[in-house]
Amino acid sequence: MIEIETCSWAYGNSGTRFKVFSQRGVPRDPYEKLADAAQVHAFTGAASRVALHIPWDQVADFQDLSRYASELGIRIGAINSNVFQDDDYMLGSVANPDPRIRRKALDHLLACVDVMEATGSDTLKLWFADGTNYPGQDDIRARQDRLAEALATVYQHLGEGRRMLLEYKLFEPAFYTTDVPDWGTAYAHCLRLGEKAQVVVDTGHHAPGTNIEFIVAVLLREGKLGGFDFNSRFYADDDLMVGAADPFQLFRIMHEIVSADALGVSFMLDQCHNIEPKIPGQIRSVMNIQEATAKALLVDRAALAEAQAGGDVLGANAVLMDAYNTDVRPRLAALRESQGLDPDPMAAYHRSGYAEKIAAERIGGVQAGWGA
Amino acid sequence: MIEIETCSWAYGNSGTRFKVFSQRGVPRDPYEKLADAAQVHAFTGAASRVALHIPWDQVADFQDLSRYASELGIRIGAINSNVFQDDDYMLGSVANPDPRIRRKALDHLLACVDVMEATGSDTLKLWFADGTNYPGQDDIRARQDRLAEALATVYQHLGEGRRMLLEYKLFEPAFYTTDVPDWGTAYAHCLRLGEKAQVVVDTGHHAPGTNIEFIVAVLLREGKLGGFDFNSRFYADDDLMVGAADPFQLFRIMHEIVSADALGVSFMLDQCHNIEPKIPGQIRSVMNIQEATAKALLVDRAALAEAQAGGDVLGANAVLMDAYNTDVRPRLAALRESQGLDPDPMAAYHRSGYAEKIAAERIGGVQAGWGA
Amino acid sequence: MIEIETCSWAYGNSGTRFKVFSQRGVPRDPYEKLADAAQVHAFTGAASRVALHIPWDQVADFQDLSRYASELGIRIGAINSNVFQDDDYMLGSVANPDPRIRRKALDHLLACVDVMEATGSDTLKLWFADGTNYPGQDDIRARQDRLAEALATVYQHLGEGRRMLLEYKLFEPAFYTTDVPDWGTAYAHCLRLGEKAQVVVDTGHHAPGTNIEFIVAVLLREGKLGGFDFNSRFYADDDLMVGAADPFQLFRIMHEIVSADALGVSFMLDQCHNIEPKIPGQIRSVMNIQEATAKALLVDRAALAEAQAGGDVLGANAVLMDAYNTDVRPRLAALRESQGLDPDPMAAYHRSGYAEKIAAERIGGVQAGWGA
Amino acid sequence: MIEIETCSWAYGNSGTRFKVFSQRGVPRDPYEKLADAAQVHAFTGAASRVALHIPWDQVADFQDLSRYASELGIRIGAINSNVFQDDDYMLGSVANPDPRIRRKALDHLLACVDVMEATGSDTLKLWFADGTNYPGQDDIRARQDRLAEALATVYQHLGEGRRMLLEYKLFEPAFYTTDVPDWGTAYAHCLRLGEKAQVVVDTGHHAPGTNIEFIVAVLLREGKLGGFDFNSRFYADDDLMVGAADPFQLFRIMHEIVSADALGVSFMLDQCHNIEPKIPGQIRSVMNIQEATAKALLVDRAALAEAQAGGDVLGANAVLMDAYNTDVRPRLAALRESQGLDPDPMAAYHRSGYAEKIAAERIGGVQAGWGA
Repeated sequence: MIEIETCSWAYGNSGTRFKVFSQRGVPRDPYEKLADAAQVHAFTGAASRVALHIPWDQVADFQDLSRYASELGIRIGAINSNVFQDDDYMLGSVANPDPRIRRKALDHLLACVDVMEATGSDTLKLWFADGTNYPGQDDIRARQDRLAEALATVYQHLGEGRRMLLEYKLFEPAFYTTDVPDWGTAYAHCLRLGEKAQVVVDTGHHAPGTNIEFIVAVLLREGKLGGFDFNSRFYADDDLMVGAADPFQLFRIMHEIVSADALGVSFMLDQCHNIEPKIPGQIRSVMNIQEATAKALLVDRAALAEAQAGGDVLGANAVLMDAYNTDVRPRLAALRESQGLDPDPMAAYHRSGYAEKIAAERIGGVQAGWGA
Repeated sequence: MIEIETCSWAYGNSGTRFKVFSQRGVPRDPYEKLADAAQVHAFTGAASRVALHIPWDQVADFQDLSRYASELGIRIGAINSNVFQDDDYMLGSVANPDPRIRRKALDHLLACVDVMEATGSDTLKLWFADGTNYPGQDDIRARQDRLAEALATVYQHLGEGRRMLLEYKLFEPAFYTTDVPDWGTAYAHCLRLGEKAQVVVDTGHHAPGTNIEFIVAVLLREGKLGGFDFNSRFYADDDLMVGAADPFQLFRIMHEIVSADALGVSFMLDQCHNIEPKIPGQIRSVMNIQEATAKALLVDRAALAEAQAGGDVLGANAVLMDAYNTDVRPRLAALRESQGLDPDPMAAYHRSGYAEKIAAERIGGVQAGWGA
Repeated sequence: MIEIETCSWAYGNSGTRFKVFSQRGVPRDPYEKLADAAQVHAFTGAASRVALHIPWDQVADFQDLSRYASELGIRIGAINSNVFQDDDYMLGSVANPDPRIRRKALDHLLACVDVMEATGSDTLKLWFADGTNYPGQDDIRARQDRLAEALATVYQHLGEGRRMLLEYKLFEPAFYTTDVPDWGTAYAHCLRLGEKAQVVVDTGHHAPGTNIEFIVAVLLREGKLGGFDFNSRFYADDDLMVGAADPFQLFRIMHEIVSADALGVSFMLDQCHNIEPKIPGQIRSVMNIQEATAKALLVDRAALAEAQAGGDVLGANAVLMDAYNTDVRPRLAALRESQGLDPDPMAAYHRSGYAEKIAAERIGGVQAGWGA
Repeated sequence: MIEIETCSWAYGNSGTRFKVFSQRGVPRDPYEKLADAAQVHAFTGAASRVALHIPWDQVADFQDLSRYASELGIRIGAINSNVFQDDDYMLGSVANPDPRIRRKALDHLLACVDVMEATGSDTLKLWFADGTNYPGQDDIRARQDRLAEALATVYQHLGEGRRMLLEYKLFEPAFYTTDVPDWGTAYAHCLRLGEKAQVVVDTGHHAPGTNIEFIVAVLLREGKLGGFDFNSRFYADDDLMVGAADPFQLFRIMHEIVSADALGVSFMLDQCHNIEPKIPGQIRSVMNIQEATAKALLVDRAALAEAQAGGDVLGANAVLMDAYNTDVRPRLAALRESQGLDPDPMAAYHRSGYAEKIAAERIGGVQAGWGA
């Protein structure tokens, strides 16, 4: 089975600009987040990596945090930088017109590289909220120059065997221009940077109507797909559970991955469980990816290739749909049992009493959330 | 000149789910918000009404607040309810499956009716964040039934000469269904309620590609357009300054209003000045509406009607574009002077020293913002 | 099983503005279209009705055509008007500024009512391409008035037990305004007309991000859902096979139908098989609807209601997804066998030799297509 | 003033898949199209180049056609290939799974290179309708490989001083995948090809919400912007007159061009005057670009740079808006007079009697249109 990376912030409270609802038992610190992430791995056997977000997961001793992860049977995944939650970043971070703020942002990125070394993480994931809200507010090309300069500096600091993933996003929080709005911009920057730089596809970060599996296929063909931030959306960047809004799309994406023998790229979850409980939300998401992958692996590739070569439109489509329409849940249940796992991770988690335990124990303190 | 209603929350801090940036001099209470609103009116002469948001603007004595507004030369506009910022409302307010929470939400709406009476407001504006995030989460029709029941109860409590404006919004904060997502749903509810219920069009609350002026025209024809929540957007509900993203669209909307002799509907601003200063942001917005309206009033309606009747596509379009392409700023400047106002409200505000004054004086306390 | 209505034009050639590709064996006249439609019914047992499009299906003797349908074991479904393919309709039909053209369009609609009587059809389906391409080109409200007048006249001519379905469409072929662009506009007109008028939902006619099942639920609640024009789309009005782009959406729509016990509304296919063979394209579409319906019928409604009432977000979603993830194809195959049908309609059709037969026999003449 | 290239097909009939309306006086052959194009140049003084479309503009002797253009005071612009209007291309051209059809398409592209030499054109413009309608229909990466191979072959045949422009388009006529759907894909191909290959931006070919001026800025920064296919759209690829749907967007695009001192890129019109007369439609479009450019040239770049550097959001925006809100029509009228042109090209054309002349003379024959 493929490995799926969960992220520390999924276990904290999240919400929209209108309201962040608090939930019982939510972690108060990075250690508690890791403990919750370990539960997801314990029941699915497929989520051994956990991404950190700096400074949300700033701790005094990252090596200790890393050791704690090991004790829990998991390890630290990608280090995610945050250069958008300081008043200084109101007009941007590395693309800010003010050189002082650019320097501050760059320093943070370099500090994240240090966290990589301290935690043993091999991946730096960069997302920039940078952009503008009003036409004329700043110079689009100048911002690209500033961005390129910062990226180049960070790239030079990456250690051996490390890589940098650059994330793009159509809009939000910037509302007129975003400095890395689409895969083309991310790709152009990564191309100039070199082999250690790759594009990460967040499934919720596209304009309506964008064909994401096409982007996946093209990036794979160019050797520039680093991986995914998985989630799902009906409208904008809704950050719902992956596979919840359009399971067929998730299947088509996994079909491109399987077709290109690329199951080794990073599969990360980047979601907000605003109204559903966090740990079950993550378990369900892991299972959704597993189901989509299992279906993609069922595609009769020889029959598909033959129908495609023959121009048999309905035949080729039918080969794909036959796999999609198959109920793969029994196979996955059997596979879990063969691995010593419960065939039904969700039921097993509910039976475990962990939810009740953390709700009872995690009293007092400040619940983790975006910005904390 | 038309009257434009600003809203109290525009003077407080706002932001996205990623960050609310604080600005210097931001009001700490409803009185300071009114003081800022009075500045917008003082320099534009066109913004004498200020909308309140309950409980953000809850005060011990609404009559006193109303008196204070009078002293400032302004008055209380629409009362906006808020049934989305309490943990109880995680799964909805008046459409919540839990009858206890529905009752709580309804009580709040009825309390807003009381605030109308206390402040002399003639308008209750209702927006519901209600909806669901996942397919199956709740029953769409049952939620409509619950919504209809609450609306009917509130409607019955409206005093003589009062009205209820129902706002629709495509999505956010709910990400799968929203209980009043489009004008059709709002219209259907208002139709059943009666004459005091009308639809309010928030220009940022539509799906991509929606022709807003068409909706305006149809609602006017049906007698159900209550007014506007003006703002502008490039992507979703960006809440930028009205006219900033698509000034031609604003002109087309005002052309429908002028064509239907409907300048008496409510023109309200519902914006978030996340990165720009608040008061100048409001002044600019008022001026943008004035310019669009002035252009709409310039349309040669006889020539337009003749070209339309004759099927002269380019000719009819040219009549409209001729008005749009005219620079109306000199006329508006002259009009302001004739009213004893400075011809350039923005420059006059900057000269006034008010911004520096509030930045110096409003030290300490908690700045107002969404949720406060 | 539910009854699905295919349409005569699906059997003719279709395409985009760039090219209509011709296919072998395509019908040359309405009789041959009915013969093809009868094949879809023969193999699926669920498509006994065929919609006509006037004047594409104009024949000298409609009673004879109706008799021919009976011989084939099928019958005439909805009569679809066409007031968009005459040079006179360049600026619209019933909403045209020219009263002569409005009269011509109205006469055509009334002629369609006559065709209903001649063929025994109980349904008149109206779609208007009317709209404008440029701002100012025509008066939006005046066009609504003209439209309303025409609809009222047609409505008065409807016979006993007959009904009128009004279709809406966001855009295309008009590119600035469309006179019936959304369900709200169609609903408002139908409401004024009376009980015989209902809205038809074409699944490809919405803005990006529109929640179609919500519209279905609201129209059902209002008693104004007449039925569907089914097809699927990734971008605009792509007219692909229903269920091909988003099978989960189709399931959600059918879940609303099943939940409201509304399987009696009209399920019509309105698709363009531009590059795939027509009859198999229709068979696949019928099967896709059957599969979605079968899944919707599997939803454990009691468990769903309980989870919804308890605010169990993930639990309620899981009940729905459990039905969706079930492979219903074996059940449908068994059901077909119990009805004396082949369990695999597609394979049976391919074995039948019908495709080869029509390709060999239908030589010469002019193939039917949009506009012929 | 900048030079704007009109295209031969704008003078022929066009339409949607629903109907191509014929207009009086429409050209019957390429010579008549050039004659009409010469009118646009005669009255605007800014449209001396005319693009050809092969085979729509196939003539026996291209040198003779080129000579005729010279006599009319104009010359041949870009040569546009057409590999989408032959039954062979149903499943694609250069990306077709069938090598015979790929070869046929490639031969056509090479023939277009020959037409360049025969006509003296320096530009080959390539747009591919290639793509798929259904998931699984063909292999996305294999299609990219085939496309890349064909592009490389054509590139090798380009003469000295010639260039190849690659156009991208989100969707239509393909409805699931398009082989060159976005600027990123076009850019990646052009980068591999070399300096003679550049991206062309068709303003109507983007997903909703795409920031086109951002793409323009990025392509300029990368040295890969070849030019524009200008038109405007409210929904999909509506091909309306440029500047008709969003004049502010056109201004923002021209602002990026002016800011980068890039007025030398190609400005081409690619529009469909479905319901308006063709020649006036082109004249209006040329004027719209001129007005947007004149406004962009008015931007106080020093003041803008200062406000941007200082983080003055509203100030920077105001500098841009001040230029946009200026009525530049008097300046352009004066400029035209200084060039010996009529200050009002549209009125002058109407007075010229040319429209009546061609309506009277061009009787009989087959009007040119898409596909002819």
